[in-house]
Order: sequence, then C-alpha cells, then structure tokens
Amino acid sequence: MGSKITSTLTHMDGLAFNVELGGHTFVIDSPNPKFGGKDRGPSPKSLILPALGGCTGMDVASILQKMRVPFTGLEVTVEAETNDQHPVYYTELRITYTVRGKGIDRKKVERAVELSRTTYCGVSFMLEPRSKITHEIVIEEA
Amino acid sequence: MGSKITSTLTHMDGLAFNVELGGHTFVIDSPNPKFGGKDRGPSPKSLILPALGGCTGMDVASILQKMRVPFTGLEVTVEAETNDQHPVYYTELRITYTVRGKGIDRKKVERAVELSRTTYCGVSFMLEPRSKITHEIVIEEA
Repeated sequence: MGSKITSTLTHMDGLAFNVELGGHTFVIDSPNPKFGGKDRGPSPKSLILPALGGCTGMDVASILQKMRVPFTGLEVTVEAETNDQHPVYYTELRITYTVRGKGIDRKKVERAVELSRTTYCGVSFMLEPRSKITHEIVIEEA
Repeated sequence: MGSKITSTLTHMDGLAFNVELGGHTFVIDSPNPKFGGKDRGPSPKSLILPALGGCTGMDVASILQKMRVPFTGLEVTVEAETNDQHPVYYTELRITYTVRGKGIDRKKVERAVELSRTTYCGVSFMLEPRSKITHEIVIEEA
C-alpha cells in the first residue's frame, strides 16, 4: 500500500505563500521584484534542488553508514540550469557528492551513489524524463 | 539564455541536512525514526508538493491580479499518493485551488489555472511524465 501526504499553501500577499508540510511551516516567495516578489523565502521551483539533493543525500548517508564507511563529512550540491522560454524548467541537474574522512573507499561511495540513482531515489526517478541528471564524486582526505 | 542556481546540503547527523538555497537556509530530515530520522524538518521528497503548489499558486495569484479578479483569499493544497515499492515516488498529485472573495468569476479562475498548467508552470511540466496531476477549483463567496 502506498501512502498519502498533503501540503497546504496559504497566500499571504504579493507572490508569497505560507507552507504547511508534514507539521513544518515555512514561507516561499519569488526573488523577482519585477513580478512582485520580495524574496521572503525560497522560490517554489528551486525546492526541486534540495528535494533531489536531499533524497539522494539521505540514501548515500544511510548506505555509507551501513557499509561502515567512516565518513566525517558529507556535502551534496545541486546545480541546475534552466531553458529560456515558458515553461521554464531545469534542463540539467548536476549533483556533486563530497565525502570527507580518512581512507574513504571511493568504490563504496560510487556504489552508494549508484544504488540511490538506480533503485532508491524517487525524486531522481520523477525528474529524469525532463532533466538531464549527472553526478560527480569528490573524496576529501581529512 | 537560461539561468543557473545552486543549492548546498551539508550533512548534520543521522539523515538531517542543512540546506542553503538562494540565500535562505532550512533543515530537511526524515520523519521515520526506523531509518534514523528525527523529523527536524520536512523530508526532501515532500518538498515536491510546495514546489508544485507554489509554482502554480504564484502563476494563479499573478494572473488573477492581472485580470483584476478581486480575490481576498487563495489557498492551494497538494495531496500526493505514492506507490509501494522502490523507487517510491508520487504516482498522483491532486491540486485544489480555493479562491475566496465576493463575486469571483469561476471562468477566470479556470482560465488562470489552465494557463499555469499549459504554459507557465515549469514544475508541473517536469513532474507530469511520471505523476498524474489533477486539479479542482473551489470558489468560496466571502
């Protein structure tokens, strides 16, 4: 059986909305004053970046922990590129995984990233028909 | 020319990440203690809901303002349903637009929603290959 989730967005003023999501609240807004945005929170579309980076980042953190890879730091950056006409969407999403620690086995990190991409990460599964998703792994001995 | 945007996610502990996005910061986490989640913020995948609802909600707010529709309230709810195997993703996304005001012209609201869906909303464009997206409009005389 699948599960359900609901989010409620209440218009504030201009283009800002108050978001309720799983018991958490935050504000989204447009960063563009030309359209009445006041940058009071992230733009809705940009939430796609932490949705993707967080989904795969949690997979990788969890798999590395299970593999007993002794990482002391993990950073995931997502860079997105848009097209230039309506609808404006992310044509490319580049994920960089930076894993820090002593004697990190790159092969294990590659395996964790691969498992996320092919098996676990529902967000990359949803985005891949429209967006070219690429990744890079950086190991930092520290 | 398209534009670029970057988000950086820094692993905290367990499955939580600190997110930097367009100058705004927030925490994402898993709500599931079974996987080490502590629900310190929304889950990454769930950010898809306000990404979609906010994208189309901003379109609709903006178009209604241009059409001089005198709405006094606008609420957008997004309900998502998942499948039950990996990768877990949103098979269905149901959007409800509730517009409040005196003498709101339903046809104009329908037109605004339609313009968002077919022309402006890049998030629905990205999600529609995998997720069935439906919508409903509720007008509340107030």
